[in-house]
Amino acid sequence: MSALSNATWSPLFKEAVSTDFRDFHECLDQDKRIAIYDVAASKVHARMLMRAGVLTPTDHDAIQVGLDTIAGEIGSGAFAWRKELEDVHMNVESRLTALVGDAGKKLHTARSRNDQVATDIRLYARAELAALGLELQALILAFVDLAEPHAATIMPGFTHLQIAQPVTFGHHLMAYAEMFSRDVERVGQARERLNVSPLGAAALAGTSYPIDPDFSAQQLGFSRAFRNSLDAVSDRDYVVDICSAGAVIMGHLSRFAEEVILWCTPMVDFIELGDQFCTGSSIMPQKRNPDLAELVRGKAARVIGNLTTSVALMKSQPLAFNKDQQESKPPLTDTLENVRGAVTVTTQMLPTIKVKAANMRAAAEKGYSTATDLADYLVRAGMPFRDAHHAVAAIVGAARDQGYATLSAMPLAAMQAFAPIISEDVVDALTTEGSVASRNHRGGTAPVQVRRAAAELRVMLG
Amino acid sequence: MSALSNATWSPLFKEAVSTDFRDFHECLDQDKRIAIYDVAASKVHARMLMRAGVLTPTDHDAIQVGLDTIAGEIGSGAFAWRKELEDVHMNVESRLTALVGDAGKKLHTARSRNDQVATDIRLYARAELAALGLELQALILAFVDLAEPHAATIMPGFTHLQIAQPVTFGHHLMAYAEMFSRDVERVGQARERLNVSPLGAAALAGTSYPIDPDFSAQQLGFSRAFRNSLDAVSDRDYVVDICSAGAVIMGHLSRFAEEVILWCTPMVDFIELGDQFCTGSSIMPQKRNPDLAELVRGKAARVIGNLTTSVALMKSQPLAFNKDQQESKPPLTDTLENVRGAVTVTTQMLPTIKVKAANMRAAAEKGYSTATDLADYLVRAGMPFRDAHHAVAAIVGAARDQGYATLSAMPLAAMQAFAPIISEDVVDALTTEGSVASRNHRGGTAPVQVRRAAAELRVMLG
Amino acid sequence: MSALSNATWSPLFKEAVSTDFRDFHECLDQDKRIAIYDVAASKVHARMLMRAGVLTPTDHDAIQVGLDTIAGEIGSGAFAWRKELEDVHMNVESRLTALVGDAGKKLHTARSRNDQVATDIRLYARAELAALGLELQALILAFVDLAEPHAATIMPGFTHLQIAQPVTFGHHLMAYAEMFSRDVERVGQARERLNVSPLGAAALAGTSYPIDPDFSAQQLGFSRAFRNSLDAVSDRDYVVDICSAGAVIMGHLSRFAEEVILWCTPMVDFIELGDQFCTGSSIMPQKRNPDLAELVRGKAARVIGNLTTSVALMKSQPLAFNKDQQESKPPLTDTLENVRGAVTVTTQMLPTIKVKAANMRAAAEKGYSTATDLADYLVRAGMPFRDAHHAVAAIVGAARDQGYATLSAMPLAAMQAFAPIISEDVVDALTTEGSVASRNHRGGTAPVQVRRAAAELRVMLG
Amino acid sequence: MSALSNATWSPLFKEAVSTDFRDFHECLDQDKRIAIYDVAASKVHARMLMRAGVLTPTDHDAIQVGLDTIAGEIGSGAFAWRKELEDVHMNVESRLTALVGDAGKKLHTARSRNDQVATDIRLYARAELAALGLELQALILAFVDLAEPHAATIMPGFTHLQIAQPVTFGHHLMAYAEMFSRDVERVGQARERLNVSPLGAAALAGTSYPIDPDFSAQQLGFSRAFRNSLDAVSDRDYVVDICSAGAVIMGHLSRFAEEVILWCTPMVDFIELGDQFCTGSSIMPQKRNPDLAELVRGKAARVIGNLTTSVALMKSQPLAFNKDQQESKPPLTDTLENVRGAVTVTTQMLPTIKVKAANMRAAAEKGYSTATDLADYLVRAGMPFRDAHHAVAAIVGAARDQGYATLSAMPLAAMQAFAPIISEDVVDALTTEGSVASRNHRGGTAPVQVRRAAAELRVMLG
Repeated sequence: MSALSNATWSPLFKEAVSTDFRDFHECLDQDKRIAIYDVAASKVHARMLMRAGVLTPTDHDAIQVGLDTIAGEIGSGAFAWRKELEDVHMNVESRLTALVGDAGKKLHTARSRNDQVATDIRLYARAELAALGLELQALILAFVDLAEPHAATIMPGFTHLQIAQPVTFGHHLMAYAEMFSRDVERVGQARERLNVSPLGAAALAGTSYPIDPDFSAQQLGFSRAFRNSLDAVSDRDYVVDICSAGAVIMGHLSRFAEEVILWCTPMVDFIELGDQFCTGSSIMPQKRNPDLAELVRGKAARVIGNLTTSVALMKSQPLAFNKDQQESKPPLTDTLENVRGAVTVTTQMLPTIKVKAANMRAAAEKGYSTATDLADYLVRAGMPFRDAHHAVAAIVGAARDQGYATLSAMPLAAMQAFAPIISEDVVDALTTEGSVASRNHRGGTAPVQVRRAAAELRVMLG
Repeated sequence: MSALSNATWSPLFKEAVSTDFRDFHECLDQDKRIAIYDVAASKVHARMLMRAGVLTPTDHDAIQVGLDTIAGEIGSGAFAWRKELEDVHMNVESRLTALVGDAGKKLHTARSRNDQVATDIRLYARAELAALGLELQALILAFVDLAEPHAATIMPGFTHLQIAQPVTFGHHLMAYAEMFSRDVERVGQARERLNVSPLGAAALAGTSYPIDPDFSAQQLGFSRAFRNSLDAVSDRDYVVDICSAGAVIMGHLSRFAEEVILWCTPMVDFIELGDQFCTGSSIMPQKRNPDLAELVRGKAARVIGNLTTSVALMKSQPLAFNKDQQESKPPLTDTLENVRGAVTVTTQMLPTIKVKAANMRAAAEKGYSTATDLADYLVRAGMPFRDAHHAVAAIVGAARDQGYATLSAMPLAAMQAFAPIISEDVVDALTTEGSVASRNHRGGTAPVQVRRAAAELRVMLG
Repeated sequence: MSALSNATWSPLFKEAVSTDFRDFHECLDQDKRIAIYDVAASKVHARMLMRAGVLTPTDHDAIQVGLDTIAGEIGSGAFAWRKELEDVHMNVESRLTALVGDAGKKLHTARSRNDQVATDIRLYARAELAALGLELQALILAFVDLAEPHAATIMPGFTHLQIAQPVTFGHHLMAYAEMFSRDVERVGQARERLNVSPLGAAALAGTSYPIDPDFSAQQLGFSRAFRNSLDAVSDRDYVVDICSAGAVIMGHLSRFAEEVILWCTPMVDFIELGDQFCTGSSIMPQKRNPDLAELVRGKAARVIGNLTTSVALMKSQPLAFNKDQQESKPPLTDTLENVRGAVTVTTQMLPTIKVKAANMRAAAEKGYSTATDLADYLVRAGMPFRDAHHAVAAIVGAARDQGYATLSAMPLAAMQAFAPIISEDVVDALTTEGSVASRNHRGGTAPVQVRRAAAELRVMLG
Repeated sequence: MSALSNATWSPLFKEAVSTDFRDFHECLDQDKRIAIYDVAASKVHARMLMRAGVLTPTDHDAIQVGLDTIAGEIGSGAFAWRKELEDVHMNVESRLTALVGDAGKKLHTARSRNDQVATDIRLYARAELAALGLELQALILAFVDLAEPHAATIMPGFTHLQIAQPVTFGHHLMAYAEMFSRDVERVGQARERLNVSPLGAAALAGTSYPIDPDFSAQQLGFSRAFRNSLDAVSDRDYVVDICSAGAVIMGHLSRFAEEVILWCTPMVDFIELGDQFCTGSSIMPQKRNPDLAELVRGKAARVIGNLTTSVALMKSQPLAFNKDQQESKPPLTDTLENVRGAVTVTTQMLPTIKVKAANMRAAAEKGYSTATDLADYLVRAGMPFRDAHHAVAAIVGAARDQGYATLSAMPLAAMQAFAPIISEDVVDALTTEGSVASRNHRGGTAPVQVRRAAAELRVMLG
């Protein structure tokens, strides 16, 4: 192991840091994401210090100019990152001092890297969550856009992947719109909860300077300042909140992905995806693989792992700040980037779906899917539910034995053998159209309800 | 493998179920927790059916009487559970039919076990979360109660478990009050989000009966009814929400537990726990083990596992209901029971803590803990922060080399050798009392701020 | 909170333990599983103590008789468990003293609950893993038994759930036999690694008595005794090893479960499961749900959660024993019980599968599944692979556009338009039988290779 | 969204891939790690094809020359990676064709990207595990090197972080040597189990070319070739095996890290770490933070998350290959890199530890740590263990009440008041040196046993 100097800390360190250790704890690439927020927070901190009389107007103005220069350099890619300065904060401060001299050395007054990094990450996460919230709304709209023209398209409704009852494809899609609506709320609540400024907590105890944490908070758009400095520097709850929301979102996307993959298999053949979201094979030229959906499913596992990391990491850590917390950043940023990516590509994929309505309809006829409707018919005719259930089971058994593919195809007399109460009007109950139309209450699969739900959601999102 | 009859389903099943499989999927013991909610939901369902004209008043009244009888039997422990009836729902329905005859067979009209179980679990989870919310408030109060008398008790503030700056024990405790305040919000939001009635979604598509889902929802205290039947029967997001909130709560408790264990080790010796929450040793009679705290730490791992299960479970499940979802119940109930237990015993343990203030104070003097205060002093005297930082490092190095245990003990001249700007008034900055008193802004560790924070939190909880 | 006495420990405890805390840390029900191993280990410990001269022959004999009596009581269910004695160890010791007097009080000489519980759990886990190993072998045989008669049954081979190339059903099943063969090795290695005796490590440091750990180890069937007492009482690696092996096994079972569910959906309809492993619906009498497979899938998530708990639990625990480790038992026992259950029911389910070979064969014809064979034909005829790949893609495109469902159905001339090199002998390459027969190397899907692999595996298991 | 061409697959794709999707599934940077293995495997594949008569010697020789050139380019960093070619395999093949013309297009004969990537990753993982195994051995030696000179250094032995009995520091360190010895075995078994060649499995079914998988396996150093082609392309068990071994290793390292952090806190002050592995503070110049140890603890959480991902990913995937599996690579490589890093820096840190033996010794005297020795003394004098236990508890209580800090300091008469059987020879049992020396059996803490264990381990590693 060779060694580098570590003058950043103090002359108390007489031996240089191990280079292997330096590589081990290096996180500059990871942290470049927060550089623009670091500059923004520093600008506000400087303003607060001037108002408090800690910085002179001259120093303040120099710092503002220097930080603006640095922001420009970061934005354009011209900023010269130096790994030996360890992190974003020291890179920025070092550059600032090079640009504006001694004033730069005064910027770190009344703060610590502990509250600085906590502030930067919250600003980063807040912006990411705002973007994700909008992207989720676009995803919901994409589901609504596909659901509306298919409000009356019949498909089989599944439980246990067995055909249970007919539903409409629009109704099926609107189930996802509901899920992602909850996710918009999750993301919003995570965002609100983290929107608290830690700036001024300093290392852990607050500071002896006459700071104004409320001013800093307000200038940075936080809803309030911290109420306890120890908590401010040690809280990483929001990483768990975000990974948890992310895992739920990916869970919803993975359910849809699973269905897309299923619907694309030639044996089911309910839909075709646009070429833009499929890949081919290096050995089988006829393949059209729904890679996007599979990758979304895989990324769900990745985000689950991030969630596990985020909670295992904070378990049993004594107050206040420990270096372990550096490891809270990778699961945070990896989750946000992968979830945003998955939401975006799914949103783009939805309009490329070609629905094969005839195949859906044919499948919905299978499996005696209107048996429940027959049972309901019998109940309406006066039979107790459990008895009706058993009578229908016998009828279905007979239909199967006698080779009738659907209950509609079975002669009336054959049914009456098991339930004499059945009369000719049973016909309406046994078609898939009749079945879906009859589920005509809020939340039911009837086409009119699907259209209503879609319209209401448009209003809510509008 | 032997076999049992499975007449519950239908005559289509000709071979009896494998007893090994039956054992494998048996969940009656697990489900007894929701039995009282099952009865409550059935009572409302019956009322709704009567209003809709599906049940006659006579049948309805018989059902209500029967269900009340069953509720009494469950409450008293007299209910005769029958494993061969597989689950809570069939046990209740079977008993009801035994009690009131054919009316009992009509209760299952216009619903399915899918919406029934979804309703029951939500009612159960809602009640548990309400209780947990109150318990968290009691926990916060216990922290506040201990923090107030220790608003000025000096202890070392740690980062990296190194002594960083003096803080007050009250301030340290109030950090936990902050964490658990966020948890109250988490629990409340999870509760609100799940407070939606799935009753009426039936198996997956809604029902052809003229049901009134809004009436059922309102009678059961839900904020609204489902908007999509497929989503209603397949949504288990709330299990993740609860496990996630539970994992964060356990994370907070585990951090406190870690500290309690540390504070109880003879080398640190900051506190003594009440006998009621310690255990002894079978071989070492002198031991007083902080078992409660260690067990809380262990239970945190357990709840993390539950969280992992809850998200891995729902990944990639096609709509709507699949049997996998049965496995969503153990992590839900295990989390709620362990989190509530951990919150309760920690709340009870807090008042038994005896604080050894002298030991805390002595430790706070170690490690040159007022070095930051000296740096701040130098900055106030006009030195740029980074230069002050380096001067103080040199002074601390000299203090160490010259054998001064604290900066207060170092002669003025010895300091001035590194920073001539230092004068006699430095003394106030170098004591631990002076240090904590100077951090006198909202969220800082000054005793007056701790008392203010405690008072404000009492008002918020009141 | 009320309180109970805690005389078990020592008179130093003046206040009784909190009953809520007692409930919180109670684990007697959990631990009854290890009671028979506790007795067995105590019998050996007593023998070792007598050999070492620590117990008199008279005391030793009394202890052996007493422990045999207790073993009988536990076996018959007659043992009177007392919750107030906290755990299995104290229950057994207390009963022993009641049975044989002062000799019973001498049994705990030269050991501690720390090494006692570690020994008991290892004995329990060792026995469970041995049973699991045998059950896995039975599972493998069940796959082989189903594979052999289907060595030539054509089905579609999938990648991305798209039809890629024809395979045989036997080959597909033998892939699972391979997976579970690795699992047998995993389980065996986990068993060997944990088969080390901790008895004699006492609380953490060893003991001052002239013990013979090697004798105890040998008598209990361990491969050796501990080499470091601190490690012996604090090691819970084997819980991770077991949960990890369990998670891999459940992963394999869940993959098969996913396929079974898919194969049972009416749109695919490749197999029918025996009634014994399906369930019906309370509302849809026609349903046959593959509940077993879905539950296996769900249990996979449960075991994943156990694995997470097991690793999160041990993270960052200082040596040697901490109470956290009590929480290592639930994931261990829950994993073993659920994995063993899942293996067993899957083994039972396999012979009830009815294969619908015609449906499999029809699906294998879809999707131009012999396109790779055509490409290989072209390469054999002299075309570079990448060029052949592109020519076949063009041919498949033409087949699709011109309405040929399979490549076999396409006229020779139509193919030659894209690759004049094709001649009449292409026919053999384009049938599904020809395709599978041609993959005739070890590990390939040719029927002869499937039969060979099955035969070899039978020998290996024999 | 804009689009790029996707000619790699086939002309069947008429629309270009979405660029957002392309970014979403891009993994070239991730995969560069396996490039050198891809080239090595291709060289062997070409040789096998020539032996099988599929490639001419001329083509074969051209390919070998081309691949060597590419290996050189990759090694020197001169290779021009092209993102639009999607992955490592197509980059290499494309460059090869540019270098050697049509021969390059023939290399992909009789293989698929499915078996190609599976082969490459196994070669990569095998090499990494070999290196990790050696690094673990170096780590064990570092523990032994520190343990030997401290074979007789007294420190407190902890259970529940309470002082239980004296142990030696050497014995404590040797506990870690035991843990990591098990890890060497874990890593070796994971390596052996994955050392199976998938090359020749092609896409999923094997190939119609006369390949020789055994030759390829032998040339690449695999212990054998695949036995089932479907399993060969779909098996990712080894990712779980590696993440699981990695999580156990990190668990062990995190336990040691926790102790290092504890030993470095000024209140405990047992050791001092070298400057090379500490960091300082930006605000508190006196700080020496054991960052390395904290980061290791944090990385343990990271690897736990990787393990979770690896098992959640494979759950419920149907055979054979699905794109989800792309996501198996990040947890694999991230685990290997972080575990290797953590092992290496811990190995480097160990020799920089300065032991403060006097502080350890002083702590070992606290807490009446020889109480067990007194109990053992009483048992040897004839008292039943449980009675001795209670007598010692009373003596400890009296010592505490009467202000004796250790049992050695208590007058004989004061002890005899509780146990008249005590005589003057009790003195030897009550010193910490006497205590550790008496635990003189294999695995006990006596210095002679520590030295023996160290010597034996050196032989085993030698």
